[in-house]
Amino acid sequence: MSHTKTQPVFLLGLGGVGRALARQIVAARASHLRRHGLRLEVVGVADSRGLVHAAQGFTDQTLLELIEWKERGGRFEQAAWPAWPSNCIVVDTTAAESSVPLLLNVLQSGGGVVLANKLPLAGELSWFDAISAGRARWETTVGAAMPVIQTLNYLLDSGDEVIRIEGALSGTLGFIAAQMERGLPFGEAVRQAKQRGYTEPDPRQDLSGKDAARKALILARMLGYRLNLDDVQIESLYPPEMEPLTVGDFLREVDALNEPMRRRADELTRDGRALRYAAVIEAGVCRVGLIGAEPNSKLARVAASDSVVVFTTRHYQDNPLAISGRGAGQEVTASGVLGDIVSLAREINQPRSAFTNS
Amino acid sequence: MSHTKTQPVFLLGLGGVGRALARQIVAARASHLRRHGLRLEVVGVADSRGLVHAAQGFTDQTLLELIEWKERGGRFEQAAWPAWPSNCIVVDTTAAESSVPLLLNVLQSGGGVVLANKLPLAGELSWFDAISAGRARWETTVGAAMPVIQTLNYLLDSGDEVIRIEGALSGTLGFIAAQMERGLPFGEAVRQAKQRGYTEPDPRQDLSGKDAARKALILARMLGYRLNLDDVQIESLYPPEMEPLTVGDFLREVDALNEPMRRRADELTRDGRALRYAAVIEAGVCRVGLIGAEPNSKLARVAASDSVVVFTTRHYQDNPLAISGRGAGQEVTASGVLGDIVSLAREINQPRSAFTNS
Repeated sequence: MSHTKTQPVFLLGLGGVGRALARQIVAARASHLRRHGLRLEVVGVADSRGLVHAAQGFTDQTLLELIEWKERGGRFEQAAWPAWPSNCIVVDTTAAESSVPLLLNVLQSGGGVVLANKLPLAGELSWFDAISAGRARWETTVGAAMPVIQTLNYLLDSGDEVIRIEGALSGTLGFIAAQMERGLPFGEAVRQAKQRGYTEPDPRQDLSGKDAARKALILARMLGYRLNLDDVQIESLYPPEMEPLTVGDFLREVDALNEPMRRRADELTRDGRALRYAAVIEAGVCRVGLIGAEPNSKLARVAASDSVVVFTTRHYQDNPLAISGRGAGQEVTASGVLGDIVSLAREINQPRSAFTNS
Repeated sequence: MSHTKTQPVFLLGLGGVGRALARQIVAARASHLRRHGLRLEVVGVADSRGLVHAAQGFTDQTLLELIEWKERGGRFEQAAWPAWPSNCIVVDTTAAESSVPLLLNVLQSGGGVVLANKLPLAGELSWFDAISAGRARWETTVGAAMPVIQTLNYLLDSGDEVIRIEGALSGTLGFIAAQMERGLPFGEAVRQAKQRGYTEPDPRQDLSGKDAARKALILARMLGYRLNLDDVQIESLYPPEMEPLTVGDFLREVDALNEPMRRRADELTRDGRALRYAAVIEAGVCRVGLIGAEPNSKLARVAASDSVVVFTTRHYQDNPLAISGRGAGQEVTASGVLGDIVSLAREINQPRSAFTNS
């Protein structure tokens, strides 16, 4: 590498992942320079309240102080969006759809987009089309930093034919299924998950299966399925009658589900099958829900606390291709986002070659 | 994608993988055009005897006829290397070191290199340095098409710290270990592997562990270990005294190893451990040999017939990142090579951007 290439980066979202990412960008500087002659320069950060930016990029010290200030409760004053460099990479670690117009704009003007945010890809199909056709990466939308998206892209590029994707992609629901497998009542498993901080503040957000469905939808769309979230068959682990309850009341009344959930689990785990909450994408259909995984299948062989994705393809039929590991967590997700930024920066910063246009 | 980009490709090696690759290039044409506006154009093919080339690229029909002709025993007349386009991708599916000067030349003149051939990366360190710093891909050198190399690169780019890599990467030795776990004598397991076509014509090439060692060495070098093949600790599954035997004599006399191999297997598989032939890369040391994998470890949980690589990193400590699947086979290896060609072609054919050099 003869030159150092400077890649401007703008961070949308300063939650746990966004803050971990800012710190990791600083920490990985030496490695990026050595491996790729690349310098990532944060030119702005924004959250739902406002933003700050610096045309020449923040110094590492300023960036770290900014993150600490946010952690102590600092609030941005509202500010207008800056005009950013056309080759800027905008990184979305929010959980909102409001960033979509901005992201599409960035892609259209030749910039890059890295998403940890699932909503732009699981929303309108036209958004998915624009993002997936552009300079974009979204590895951490499915299975945190596990290389699920790049593996699927590689399978598609290799001319292989993907027959089925199965995935246990929710750490929370994996934990609950594992506890039920060990004989714990459903309500107790839910409360344990909540106590350990594995759930959203309202555990129904996990139990509804919607988040798992969004991950499944992203994979299905990458396979070319023209589906929307309404088309995904979702098994919710609580009935609609419990929707109006407060979180506290829900956690008390959840034991009413112990009996029916135990019957369902017993039925699914006959003949030594393993209880999993999984996505299955096959033959144009996409569904998420409880399944009984065959004893020797890859879904069953992986510990329930692990996330796992299994690709059955023309080339991987008898020995499906499986990726398993830790599929959740802010630090690991931030590291996946950083891997995406570097990958995209390398694509954007390639020197021009003598390719032939026809 | 507004333009079709044409990417010239030159194939070195027309063994099983090379021929499967040529056919897959033709079969995947429509998908490459649709997904990336990319057209791969084979401008030459070569084997150890000679070559043919076509400045404008072979038609699909000519290419397929050429492959069939080779399969019927056709022989190239010797021919001089053509002057290829500077943006050409040269694909090495040979098993020889003789291609190295050519590959280095291609990289230096701005072209790309895709390797299924392990020898250039497991040979002199200076070759590894030149290839890994250039426009190159080598996914199928370790675990066939399983995304091992791209995952390791992604971990390194993400600023994660790789603590340990373990891999069961030889389908042949995996089969033999699995048969021994089931109580079969070593000699019988070797003969079965040979009969099923899982081994090289001389099974000692597999049993020596050298091929597994080359894969381990490539991973170790990617971690920055400055090692050569001599530095890898290799456990051979036959003693040096059996080296001079003919293949037939070896297959008869291999039963002399049944007793010592049974003792070694029993010792390793105490307390429910699983017998694996594995590479372990950790703390600057790289070794391959028989191990007893902890009952609940990822190496043990995966079927012995599968290939598997387990990355333990700062971010993946309690739940290591594991990739498992079919790690051998000509069709699947060719598909991995094709995935590499597409990935590299996309990198080479990026339109110029307004990046900043400093």
